[in-house]
Amino acid sequence: MKLNTHNSKLSFVVILAGGSGTRFWPLSRETCPKQMLQIVGEDTLLRQTVKRINGFVPPENIWIVTTEDMSQDIRFHLEPLGPIARSIRMINEPVGRNTAPAIGLAALHLHHLSPESIMIVMPSDHAIPEHDQFQEDLKLAIKGAEENCLVTFGIKPNRPETGYGYIKIDDQKDARPDGLLKVERFVEKPDVPTAQKYISLGNYYWNSGIFVWKTSRILSEIETHLPSLYKTLKEIEVILFEPNKLNKPNKLNKPNKPNQPNKPNKLNEPESRSALCAMRYASLEPVSIDYGIMERSADILMVPATFGWSDLGSWTALDEIIEKDQDGNILKGNTIDIGSRNTIIFGGERLIATIGLKDMVLVDTPDATLAAPKERVQEIRKIVETLKQKGSEEYLLHKKVERPWGNYTVLEKGSGYKIKRVVINPGAKLSLQLHRKRSEHWVVVSGTAKVIRDSETYWVHTNESTFIPVNTKHRLENPGEVPLQIIEVQNGDYLEENDIERFDDDYGRPTVV
Amino acid sequence: MKLNTHNSKLSFVVILAGGSGTRFWPLSRETCPKQMLQIVGEDTLLRQTVKRINGFVPPENIWIVTTEDMSQDIRFHLEPLGPIARSIRMINEPVGRNTAPAIGLAALHLHHLSPESIMIVMPSDHAIPEHDQFQEDLKLAIKGAEENCLVTFGIKPNRPETGYGYIKIDDQKDARPDGLLKVERFVEKPDVPTAQKYISLGNYYWNSGIFVWKTSRILSEIETHLPSLYKTLKEIEVILFEPNKLNKPNKLNKPNKPNQPNKPNKLNEPESRSALCAMRYASLEPVSIDYGIMERSADILMVPATFGWSDLGSWTALDEIIEKDQDGNILKGNTIDIGSRNTIIFGGERLIATIGLKDMVLVDTPDATLAAPKERVQEIRKIVETLKQKGSEEYLLHKKVERPWGNYTVLEKGSGYKIKRVVINPGAKLSLQLHRKRSEHWVVVSGTAKVIRDSETYWVHTNESTFIPVNTKHRLENPGEVPLQIIEVQNGDYLEENDIERFDDDYGRPTVV
Repeated sequence: MKLNTHNSKLSFVVILAGGSGTRFWPLSRETCPKQMLQIVGEDTLLRQTVKRINGFVPPENIWIVTTEDMSQDIRFHLEPLGPIARSIRMINEPVGRNTAPAIGLAALHLHHLSPESIMIVMPSDHAIPEHDQFQEDLKLAIKGAEENCLVTFGIKPNRPETGYGYIKIDDQKDARPDGLLKVERFVEKPDVPTAQKYISLGNYYWNSGIFVWKTSRILSEIETHLPSLYKTLKEIEVILFEPNKLNKPNKLNKPNKPNQPNKPNKLNEPESRSALCAMRYASLEPVSIDYGIMERSADILMVPATFGWSDLGSWTALDEIIEKDQDGNILKGNTIDIGSRNTIIFGGERLIATIGLKDMVLVDTPDATLAAPKERVQEIRKIVETLKQKGSEEYLLHKKVERPWGNYTVLEKGSGYKIKRVVINPGAKLSLQLHRKRSEHWVVVSGTAKVIRDSETYWVHTNESTFIPVNTKHRLENPGEVPLQIIEVQNGDYLEENDIERFDDDYGRPTVV
Repeated sequence: MKLNTHNSKLSFVVILAGGSGTRFWPLSRETCPKQMLQIVGEDTLLRQTVKRINGFVPPENIWIVTTEDMSQDIRFHLEPLGPIARSIRMINEPVGRNTAPAIGLAALHLHHLSPESIMIVMPSDHAIPEHDQFQEDLKLAIKGAEENCLVTFGIKPNRPETGYGYIKIDDQKDARPDGLLKVERFVEKPDVPTAQKYISLGNYYWNSGIFVWKTSRILSEIETHLPSLYKTLKEIEVILFEPNKLNKPNKLNKPNKPNQPNKPNKLNEPESRSALCAMRYASLEPVSIDYGIMERSADILMVPATFGWSDLGSWTALDEIIEKDQDGNILKGNTIDIGSRNTIIFGGERLIATIGLKDMVLVDTPDATLAAPKERVQEIRKIVETLKQKGSEEYLLHKKVERPWGNYTVLEKGSGYKIKRVVINPGAKLSLQLHRKRSEHWVVVSGTAKVIRDSETYWVHTNESTFIPVNTKHRLENPGEVPLQIIEVQNGDYLEENDIERFDDDYGRPTVV
């Protein structure tokens, strides 16, 4: 179907990237949630999501909603996308409150840019390999949104999945010629017999979690079905966009107390306004857009997706999206197997040897390995909870940490020392910094380093080393054209990352001066 | 039962330590066979074996038979036992030829010391926790050997094991008052119904592989049942102990050839004699003592063992020797489990998280992980074979390598560099050495190093570093009282262990001068 080009300037993409999924542990970690993982395809799920929409709207019309905690990491994570990454705009939730508040907050921002704006809501952690197909289907969805409908994408089910919500389509008496289908209702996750019935009936689709609508329409739906969310959003709108209204004594400012004089002018300062927004947002009840809106609204249209899709809800979802070998296995990484069947091995450089596994999942990372039958992968979250309770932080972080200038990997931690391999991208430099509690030995193993140490500037070549004493301002830079790789041996009694004072930084991280 | 003290000066212990078992991979490796592993108990199996016999015979009466390849490593491995380690004598097989030739070779040596000598043959890789019980039973066995019988130890079976040979005891009509039982015959590994029958009959025992006999008697048995082995042993005897006989033209010297004049005097030189022995030994057919002798001999007595025993034939043997938790699991190392049953997890520092495993074995080492159902652990050898075929040498060695002066662990190998953590024991020093292809950066992270570099001698303290350029003679020593720990970053295109020229060594390793 050939559609006219949509008005891309009024179309905005909102990528929901606030999830901190534990279901892909040990590959996913607190600081590396699922959307940042490369599980399928050539890139991480989040970067694939951005690529999927690239060209459909101007880069500055791409917005990412995430939490304040993750915001900087997400920003750095997007860097490899090049110039488009810098155009993307971020909305930070002070805390996660599920999809309805996140979408409402984004709608508020976009509606402020234009009351005519259309928003395309996409999860950041789904797999959709066919970007062209996706954009074709999206044009159809935009058409529906322009008619002021709520538009969703439905996936034709190929198995009686009980982990998804379903969309029931109206009888096709008055079918639309453009292919958009009228939705009768959203239905919750079914049991197996019900799911089997849905499949045989043929007019049930999986709910993909991708939506298109006018911001005006979704805000109006929120007003109708989630009035308390709407009220808070309106309060936040005033704080964000009409701060002068705050000067007048109104409901937003509590009455004066003797020890706490009302200082309404302070609210014109961005920090105070931001804190006020945070307070308001944090007070919201978490609610999903499906439960809060879609199950209650009328005028919903559905695009029957022509693209492949998986929500990658757990390790076993790989079976739906990755091609298996003749024994039904998916073997990734350095594996050697004898006679396993229907098993997923997801490893890396370490050797994983397996014999005769059946319907298992085995995931290996440098510091943790997980083994479970497929039917019990939902219990991975219990493992993560136990680790949290035990305070086993290391298994909630990764050994390899991405940074805007490159990455580092902790090779070993011992009593009084820590060893890192540090990779600095060509042209990149770390912040000008200082450590109070540790000294650092650097051995350059490839490339050439430019080092600033106190008032000196000097070069350290491959197979040379240098020493940064404690309490000494220093900066490491890769002026070359190939990655600079150094082995850093830290010495000291306290070797945590937070022993750092930054004086200058290329990436806008907080400095002490 | 109280026995008189045996004549310990005429009793010799022969520990068979030539095995290179692959069944405990990935914990066992080519350079770290099963006898060197700490699988059960407080020490490695080999060191436990030595401790088990300690005090029963003088230390210099303990002999270890192993292969030439493993001999040095075994010697270093014994070091932690202290003075006793230095008294132990080694017999090196040029190549492994199974137990009958190994025992024959040992008998030859002991018989030369005294024709009255009694030899106690013990595998080096079995688990016997109760050392006192073992020594008590041994006294009874010696009594039998003094009567010129072949004495073996039988283990009362508690399950219809098909992996062991069995010993059938004579009807007890003429039972001996001392408790020694007359053996009717040795029987091969049975099938399950036969094993069940053996257990219900009550006069069948497992063959433990521990034997006691006079050297004169076993040599005479070899003469009878393995005449070709006997002939070769006699030839070796002449070469080892009567080299002057070699000067006379006899069968051992081939007739002169024109280009190869007979130089019989050369055979008085130890190297030539050793080469001749090696040639003779290598020509032997591999045969086990059970098949070659025990199944064919008469006059066999059996001690019904009062000690606990396991031959640790595979990972699943742990079930017999280690106490299980209430769900039948054995969980060793850094593990976190939800609801597994009858499963063995054998890990170390890395985190192993498991959910709902049943009857599985999961073994984790720093560079390789193995997972298999218990019923298929016999196939581990296929994994090892595949790794050999692939040339994946790294999984046949361990990351951590024991050395007489301490140990080193390879932390990372990359293009052009390798990182090691090196631990030097107090008072120990590495050889004076030189590398042709690599330079080394050393960062001391604990202790103090004494460094010789060319003509300099200097100290490097914690948090200091030094550099050893390529082609530079150097030596590293720990003159202190605590372990010295350094991080070594090697640089070069070729970073293998064999790039080393030794000039002086405290441990007798070959030097170039």
